[in-house]
Amino acid sequence: MTIWLHTLITKTPQEGYELAVKLSRVAIKMTQPDAAIRERLRPEYAESFEALIGSSQIVATHFATVAAANGYWKDEP
Amino acid sequence: MTIWLHTLITKTPQEGYELAVKLSRVAIKMTQPDAAIRERLRPEYAESFEALIGSSQIVATHFATVAAANGYWKDEP
Amino acid sequence: MTIWLHTLITKTPQEGYELAVKLSRVAIKMTQPDAAIRERLRPEYAESFEALIGSSQIVATHFATVAAANGYWKDEP
Amino acid sequence: MTIWLHTLITKTPQEGYELAVKLSRVAIKMTQPDAAIRERLRPEYAESFEALIGSSQIVATHFATVAAANGYWKDEP
Amino acid sequence: MTIWLHTLITKTPQEGYELAVKLSRVAIKMTQPDAAIRERLRPEYAESFEALIGSSQIVATHFATVAAANGYWKDEP
Amino acid sequence: MTIWLHTLITKTPQEGYELAVKLSRVAIKMTQPDAAIRERLRPEYAESFEALIGSSQIVATHFATVAAANGYWKDEP
Repeated sequence: MTIWLHTLITKTPQEGYELAVKLSRVAIKMTQPDAAIRERLRPEYAESFEALIGSSQIVATHFATVAAANGYWKDEP
Repeated sequence: MTIWLHTLITKTPQEGYELAVKLSRVAIKMTQPDAAIRERLRPEYAESFEALIGSSQIVATHFATVAAANGYWKDEP
Repeated sequence: MTIWLHTLITKTPQEGYELAVKLSRVAIKMTQPDAAIRERLRPEYAESFEALIGSSQIVATHFATVAAANGYWKDEP
Repeated sequence: MTIWLHTLITKTPQEGYELAVKLSRVAIKMTQPDAAIRERLRPEYAESFEALIGSSQIVATHFATVAAANGYWKDEP
Repeated sequence: MTIWLHTLITKTPQEGYELAVKLSRVAIKMTQPDAAIRERLRPEYAESFEALIGSSQIVATHFATVAAANGYWKDEP
Repeated sequence: MTIWLHTLITKTPQEGYELAVKLSRVAIKMTQPDAAIRERLRPEYAESFEALIGSSQIVATHFATVAAANGYWKDEP
């Protein structure tokens, strides 16, 4: 199996945020592995504020985890 | 009763993520133990972005728990 | 009043998960104490993916609490 | 103003759970202070699984806070 | 700009809860800055249990933060 | 790529809240990168209490992270 998640540690908060976005997307792929179906759903999804808000909430939850893992990048300038 | 959850400790973050997915699915099985009904609901579910987002949020919540249990795998390279 | 919750400490992670399921159900009973109404709602509930996902999210939230209470069962083999 | 919340510390986990239920209800009263309207909404509410699940999720969030405040009642037998 | 949030520290748990309610309301004002529109939405909102539950969940999330900031007011009698 | 997130550390709780609002908005932009579509959705969004509540919940989740990162600004007067 492909390794897609090596570590939760990132150099900067922004990279941590991008990792949170990635973690959010993987669950959707694991629930609906058929890429064709996901592509079919995407337009409807991308124009629904409900879906945008739902995605944003998941990112927030993962970002909390990644930020804790990185000690909140407190040494960043 | 079958033991399906031995430990929250995993070797890698990715295995931790997979455990989070497993933890998410068990609650659905415990609420709706009838596999036939679950199977009947699955197609509708897998094509609903609302359901995909809901599942992804649950995975995120469990992943936070598993990551904390593992000290965020800080020794991973 | 009946004591239904003695402790958050469990021997294994799986018992902790089962406690999380129990904690989820109690809130529903306290909001709708009439067992007849709950029974009437159950079939509709058990066949709704939205309800299954909602329940699963609550279990995940309680499991986070129970897991923290148990120090994540780190001594488990 | 009436003091309705003296402390988050409770003697037992079950009392902590009851406090979490109380904390959940106060927000609803503060948002809709008119008791007559709340009473009018109650029947509809109590027969909606969506509402029961939503309430249960709020209780779970507050219970996490109360449990942490009490050090998870680790000295309980 | 007006300072509306000086500190997360409060003297009592109840004041902490009131701060959590305030924190919940600010996000709504920042998303919809037009007070006239907010007022127009209010009646519909205040009679919808879905909205009441949603608000209550946000208060619960902020209360967790405020309670942690205050060390759970453990010295309160 | 533009650096939009340098640090989670802010001078005051209010600046921390504003950062939480910013973190909430970025996820929406990353899911729907087309500004024209976002603008088209905005009016509908800004008049929907469901959307306002959803946004407010995301802000609350990010604020918890930012507050923890800042040690809850405990030295603030």
